[in-house]
Amino acid sequence: MTATITAFAASPDRGQGLARDMRVRWAFEEVSQPYDVRLVSFAEMKAAEHLARHPFGQIPTFEEGGLTLFESGGIILHIAESHPGLLPDDPDGRARAIAWMFAAVNTVEPPILERSMAWLLERDKPWYEARLPMLDANVRNRLDQLSAHLGDAEWLDGAFSAADVMMVTVLRRLGSSGILQDYPTLAAYIARGEARPAYQRAFAAQLEVFKAATGG
Amino acid sequence: MTATITAFAASPDRGQGLARDMRVRWAFEEVSQPYDVRLVSFAEMKAAEHLARHPFGQIPTFEEGGLTLFESGGIILHIAESHPGLLPDDPDGRARAIAWMFAAVNTVEPPILERSMAWLLERDKPWYEARLPMLDANVRNRLDQLSAHLGDAEWLDGAFSAADVMMVTVLRRLGSSGILQDYPTLAAYIARGEARPAYQRAFAAQLEVFKAATGG
Repeated sequence: MTATITAFAASPDRGQGLARDMRVRWAFEEVSQPYDVRLVSFAEMKAAEHLARHPFGQIPTFEEGGLTLFESGGIILHIAESHPGLLPDDPDGRARAIAWMFAAVNTVEPPILERSMAWLLERDKPWYEARLPMLDANVRNRLDQLSAHLGDAEWLDGAFSAADVMMVTVLRRLGSSGILQDYPTLAAYIARGEARPAYQRAFAAQLEVFKAATGG
Repeated sequence: MTATITAFAASPDRGQGLARDMRVRWAFEEVSQPYDVRLVSFAEMKAAEHLARHPFGQIPTFEEGGLTLFESGGIILHIAESHPGLLPDDPDGRARAIAWMFAAVNTVEPPILERSMAWLLERDKPWYEARLPMLDANVRNRLDQLSAHLGDAEWLDGAFSAADVMMVTVLRRLGSSGILQDYPTLAAYIARGEARPAYQRAFAAQLEVFKAATGG
């Protein structure tokens, strides 16, 4: 049975692969599983049919047989537990990879998202320039720590795992900020993720949706 | 073997149980497992010994045998997978509970934390009053959706689970905001969580630490 996910009919990132369906597509590709995509408009995301799938009216969702899931972390962990390739076999390594999945969305993503949202919603406000150093410092604090942890390692904890799918996609949101230029260790980590064939197939698939939506 | 967690030697919440060790203590109590606590000062949290446990220099951490974990979500999921009582037996229910754990920390907590942090760090800034309506609206948007999902249900998805441990502790941070007065469904949900004997044991344990630290 092929799972169906939801994604933006017209992604606001214009095909850069920054929407959260990208993570889920990448996970499917890593474990060589096909998936179907249901595209939803912003109006559809707030309608009852989609809210039954996702109580917070967002994408992505996951449907397979009688199971409906939401939250990219929950979906990717489910995929990783259902198919080999995204979690270590040993129980301790598995628990550590899951902890890193939570770290990606609960410790590293919040300051990055807060900075992005301030730019998106408040950059014309009189306080934007005054707040930016604080927003930047919060991001850099996490990047300093993550970079120190990573050091010379290729991935977060041993072999590539679902945690790297989460963390690389979280960090990619900084792409246009210029901040990553100061973090060669993290820039190289992101590049290793983006170089994976599974990543590239997932990226191409989401870009195709954007091109089709814009007739490009 | 008894696991050891870390907690603040002197919690900035003054014993209100808002620090993230509270979640982990509650989870241990729900599955009737003992645990040891290592208290760490703010200086110790940033030192190499603790950074080896927690790359972002925070609490809580979890150590048992050769396994060291960080991130409350990762720790609680590990406890829930090691002992019965915090996850449904059926695989679909289990996957949904895990998705709700991610929703608690990735969808509901960020706007709550952003509002708390603005109060903590920016309430004397000239822009605080101007930004507060937006911060409140972001919180209320999530509470509206969560309240609609919960409806007349007792817990997030069927029986009480690790997802409720996460969500109740995330929502408790709004306690002093006055916002929850407008959400009787969520206030009752939090109260149900707080009424559980396991919650009360965990709360008493963290309060004891604060009292001892302040000689109270």
